[in-house]
Amino acid sequence: MRKILVVGAGKSTSYLIDYFLEKATQENLHLTIGDIDPYTIASEIKNHEACTVIQLDIFQDQERKKVIEENDIVVSMLPARMHMKVAEDCISFEKHLVTASYISEEIKTLDQQAKEKGLVFMNEIGLDPGIDHMSAMQVIDRIREKGGRMILFESFTGGLVAPESDNNLWNYKFTWNPRNVVLAGQGGAAKFLQEGTYKYIPYHKLFRRTEFFEIEGYGRFEGYANRNSLNYREVYGLQDILTLYRGTMRRVGFSKAWNMFVELGATDDSYTIENSEGMTYRKFINSFLPYSPTDSVELKLRHYLKIEQDDIRWEKLLELNLFDAKKSIPLKNGTPAQILQFILEDSWSLSDDDKDMIVMYHKFGYELNGKQFQIDANTIVKGNSKTHTAMAKTVGLPVAIATLAILNKKITTPGVQIPIQKEVYEPILNELKEYGVVFKEYDVPYLGYNPESVYDT
Amino acid sequence: MRKILVVGAGKSTSYLIDYFLEKATQENLHLTIGDIDPYTIASEIKNHEACTVIQLDIFQDQERKKVIEENDIVVSMLPARMHMKVAEDCISFEKHLVTASYISEEIKTLDQQAKEKGLVFMNEIGLDPGIDHMSAMQVIDRIREKGGRMILFESFTGGLVAPESDNNLWNYKFTWNPRNVVLAGQGGAAKFLQEGTYKYIPYHKLFRRTEFFEIEGYGRFEGYANRNSLNYREVYGLQDILTLYRGTMRRVGFSKAWNMFVELGATDDSYTIENSEGMTYRKFINSFLPYSPTDSVELKLRHYLKIEQDDIRWEKLLELNLFDAKKSIPLKNGTPAQILQFILEDSWSLSDDDKDMIVMYHKFGYELNGKQFQIDANTIVKGNSKTHTAMAKTVGLPVAIATLAILNKKITTPGVQIPIQKEVYEPILNELKEYGVVFKEYDVPYLGYNPESVYDT
Repeated sequence: MRKILVVGAGKSTSYLIDYFLEKATQENLHLTIGDIDPYTIASEIKNHEACTVIQLDIFQDQERKKVIEENDIVVSMLPARMHMKVAEDCISFEKHLVTASYISEEIKTLDQQAKEKGLVFMNEIGLDPGIDHMSAMQVIDRIREKGGRMILFESFTGGLVAPESDNNLWNYKFTWNPRNVVLAGQGGAAKFLQEGTYKYIPYHKLFRRTEFFEIEGYGRFEGYANRNSLNYREVYGLQDILTLYRGTMRRVGFSKAWNMFVELGATDDSYTIENSEGMTYRKFINSFLPYSPTDSVELKLRHYLKIEQDDIRWEKLLELNLFDAKKSIPLKNGTPAQILQFILEDSWSLSDDDKDMIVMYHKFGYELNGKQFQIDANTIVKGNSKTHTAMAKTVGLPVAIATLAILNKKITTPGVQIPIQKEVYEPILNELKEYGVVFKEYDVPYLGYNPESVYDT
Repeated sequence: MRKILVVGAGKSTSYLIDYFLEKATQENLHLTIGDIDPYTIASEIKNHEACTVIQLDIFQDQERKKVIEENDIVVSMLPARMHMKVAEDCISFEKHLVTASYISEEIKTLDQQAKEKGLVFMNEIGLDPGIDHMSAMQVIDRIREKGGRMILFESFTGGLVAPESDNNLWNYKFTWNPRNVVLAGQGGAAKFLQEGTYKYIPYHKLFRRTEFFEIEGYGRFEGYANRNSLNYREVYGLQDILTLYRGTMRRVGFSKAWNMFVELGATDDSYTIENSEGMTYRKFINSFLPYSPTDSVELKLRHYLKIEQDDIRWEKLLELNLFDAKKSIPLKNGTPAQILQFILEDSWSLSDDDKDMIVMYHKFGYELNGKQFQIDANTIVKGNSKTHTAMAKTVGLPVAIATLAILNKKITTPGVQIPIQKEVYEPILNELKEYGVVFKEYDVPYLGYNPESVYDT
């Protein structure tokens, strides 16, 4: 019997838990789920013969150490900042560890010890980071193996609403942590490389510098830059690359409309609004507009943001009830970002029968025998239900597959790592195909950032 | 003999030192100047019979304590963060202390001890903060004494170039710390009150929400909001005020042009530009613009910032040699703000015969016997030379006058304070008049923020 401990049973764990329980008999597994609030876990999970659900406060050292010691491998689905205590215990009791979070400087300090003890500490093995690393490295390694030299890498991911549930003007609903959506792009300029030139975009211009994509059968999307794309040079071994850009995908038009909130200052999370409790949506918006004793909030906003009468952005604001003088905000001393989130959740929450959708789009440019080539690869994953979302599938399944692969000694290289080695990504990507996570590849002309070259061919 | 110690003999101390030396015989003063680098102090000061110049590293505890113990009052013109050690010694050795810096939370903790020992710790007694507090409180107290109720207070200060030296398109040169000019407005939204409504302006809109002023004989100015105007409610006792706004003054058109740098992201101080050393001005600007293999930096910038061909902002950029492909930046790993500062100093430094100018403008709105009134007050102070600037005069003289008034027991109320009490501001404002710091007052109709009311009268 191999014993798996999952700590933290939040939204993203539905597929992860199903995976282990479905394979429990065949693979001889026992699953323990530890959560601070285990009462909400579905009864079919709690009553499963291969599963034990316990209440676990990871800040209680004794409990935590005991349960980690009893298991063979630990999957931490806790918020990223809580991993470290779990990781230290995994070192003490010699257990493997799997997380979907960005590798932290703290976790990195355990690398030497993990190696000495032969332990695999696998991180960044969810969707983004996770599937993006694996699917990108698979293509990059293939290009290198045939002697190609990488000159361009772009990668975009988006958590969106599925077409059949896409029924608002923004073509967007919250399918994941709304707070991250409201704060997206804040905390520093976006940095990337285009044709060998370093480029920097300040937050207030980020949503006005988008790129566009077409995905067969799904239409058009747009992407805006993520914070620091340059980090990926080292990670992917792309030191000499000319273009390096990572971004977030939305439906076309989202960014231009979202930029209205950025322009107003309504996404700011650095200060609190005076007297926010009971403030109407209308008053909230007015607090970002110049005072006038005569002009309406509507006209002031149109003028300030230069919104013409036939601009669809206007309808998008109306759809959010932004000028409503009755709807009010219950938050005490809310920041603009918190209040905006509240207003958006009023409109953008998933209904019970809504489905979500994950989109990922990579571009790989390379040189081979003096010629330039490009491969575009993309995948679309749709959710099945409100609990079995595409997000839960794409975050949870790679974690689950990696966990079993480690137990089965298919992944053996020890140390604190991310899934960029063939040993790791090949079996996982293969198995993900069975679950519908399939990348389609297209050979396209290499245009780089030179649209003129279209006419040269 | 009364002994004054001045620590820190930077740019702003010329008038301060002259004041003490001119009054040395009459007032029986001895001045000691302590500076980390005393070699640059003019010989007429060093050789003055009433003056001793010493080298002083304020981080050397023994030296610092010794010289503070030997004097009767300490004037700290050090950078604000260095005051605390001096202040603690002033408590130990029972010496008065005068600074032109914003009162810090640290300094506030000494209030009780200062009071117990009968020591005056006067802060914020330069120009801004300083003359602004005193000149505002004088009018506010007068309005209150006749039974008026304050409904509006606005206050603007600017350090500018004098009209006779105003010979560039920006109508601006650096007359003070250039770094503060480049970073102005960063670090949080501007917050203020207009007609009872809280208003918030994000940094990227700050320079597009200006107000205008006319000063007799000097033409038009504009003002943009300073960070948190709401702080002044408590300080000035304006808890019920409807409009409260503090700002910075520039010549009309500066803010609109400066906003180009904000839009580009060129004022960002939070990250460093890759390979900044040796980068041309042109490349620096290009790093904020979209990549194009065909379009010039000029066209990309015009398009990005929507600058039409007859827009004066374009000439302003050309005047700064911003598109120069030869001029290069010597800074290693400079932030955008540091690099922009370097480029601006290339154009905006004062020449040897340039003079500076200080502008301050207050508006006071009040209600009396059911009617609304407004007083506008302003002052213009021009510099005499490159060393005897208006900035040095308006920062240094209030400090000097306060110091002597404390020695002469005209200011006696002990404790950590700012100059908002009549005992303090009356004698200082009176004496400042002798040096040409004179406020002109105008009774104007109270318009508040209701421009329509112009037509009602």
